[in-house]
Amino acid sequence: MASDCTVLKLRYIGTAYHGWQRQKNVPTVQETLEKAVSAALGRPVSLVGCGRTDAGVHAEVYAANFRGSCSIPLDRLPLALNARLPDDIAVLDACSADSDFHAVFSCKRKEYTYLIYNSGLRDPFYVHRACFFPERLDLDLMRAAAARMTGTFDCAAFRSVGTNVKTTVRTVYDFEITRSGDIIRARICADGFLYNMARAMVGTAVYSGLGKISPEEIGSIILSGNRCLAGPTMPPEGLYMTRVVYSAEPVRSMMDG
Amino acid sequence: MASDCTVLKLRYIGTAYHGWQRQKNVPTVQETLEKAVSAALGRPVSLVGCGRTDAGVHAEVYAANFRGSCSIPLDRLPLALNARLPDDIAVLDACSADSDFHAVFSCKRKEYTYLIYNSGLRDPFYVHRACFFPERLDLDLMRAAAARMTGTFDCAAFRSVGTNVKTTVRTVYDFEITRSGDIIRARICADGFLYNMARAMVGTAVYSGLGKISPEEIGSIILSGNRCLAGPTMPPEGLYMTRVVYSAEPVRSMMDG
Repeated sequence: MASDCTVLKLRYIGTAYHGWQRQKNVPTVQETLEKAVSAALGRPVSLVGCGRTDAGVHAEVYAANFRGSCSIPLDRLPLALNARLPDDIAVLDACSADSDFHAVFSCKRKEYTYLIYNSGLRDPFYVHRACFFPERLDLDLMRAAAARMTGTFDCAAFRSVGTNVKTTVRTVYDFEITRSGDIIRARICADGFLYNMARAMVGTAVYSGLGKISPEEIGSIILSGNRCLAGPTMPPEGLYMTRVVYSAEPVRSMMDG
Repeated sequence: MASDCTVLKLRYIGTAYHGWQRQKNVPTVQETLEKAVSAALGRPVSLVGCGRTDAGVHAEVYAANFRGSCSIPLDRLPLALNARLPDDIAVLDACSADSDFHAVFSCKRKEYTYLIYNSGLRDPFYVHRACFFPERLDLDLMRAAAARMTGTFDCAAFRSVGTNVKTTVRTVYDFEITRSGDIIRARICADGFLYNMARAMVGTAVYSGLGKISPEEIGSIILSGNRCLAGPTMPPEGLYMTRVVYSAEPVRSMMDG
């Protein structure tokens, strides 16, 4: 029995796009990819993406699925689609999945990584690829703040308005902050992210690193559910979707490979 | 006695520019930087750059000097200039030099590094930052070819036409090829480079890696002085100027620091 669901593993630089989600009159990753898939398969194809990434946000890995027959063998699909895609979007792999697979609802965990270029002078090599932040940041304070933003809790204080969700409770499995040279890397793994949540959590850790929010205050900020008490939403260019976890094979293996 | 020569250490992503050298009606790094320096110092400033980089070529480090008084303290000059420069060009450091310093003629050695993204599928993260080359390359053959392109020899076979030079003999101190994951890095250090020489030498090593030019043929290609016998000029997006060596202090220390 042939599956009627095909899953694509993508990578893209989001600088030129208004995010994943199709919108009128602006270029989006979804529309660009849907055009390529539709042209390659010779039929109109709609894609389901694993999440809304915002304008300027990148994806090291991203999952999207479509339904219906796929007339191109899966092992040739990446090359066939890449030939029709601009240089800043690539299909890395493809597999078939059970017909009830859904890139959003089947997703168990997602990971975002935020890059801060923390140096007195900006570096052209990181333009559009990291957030330039010249002020001194205390990594110990950032880590203490991050530790208090893990666990299962109401993330409303880290949510930008504009989306309707049933619950604002999420489980943050890991919020790790490391430094290598001038690059600070903040990696957040959760079962889901509210709108702008990753960038607001990084902004809160950055405010801790500046001494503007004490790590001890994070608990009460979370309890308040008040977005104004948490740190700022960091700019999009530093944000990368870096992992998407599914339990069902072969999607799990493909996305982690 | 105040020096009347100021040396700038630069970094830039060359994608948006038609190379270093000022030309009519197209954006160049030289013109962009001269405008910023002139505006900051309040007088017209002409820059001497350490080399012509081509359109699309990048510089991890690049040296340029100007003459005349500098009304801004050297330690504040990078920030003052960066405030007037686009994001893809940055001044990393500045120092004063003897009045006979000249970014080209005082230069002892230069190093270029060429990045090849050698994988079956292109990677959006390397667009404009490396040359995508999907064919299999034999690294041992590339290294054997590179070894035969070192020493002091007539480099005419690796020169594109279009420049007048007194001699086409250059000393190539080092031509090293390494691989890390899907990235092949070719690093060439020489006392000088003819027009397109670095890209033609890498193209020749690539042809060896493909089995199209045997390393044993390199000697006769050099002796022939015939550009048509060597490998192709690789595209510019993979090329970086990575080191510029001067003997005079404090320029030497600044460029290596």
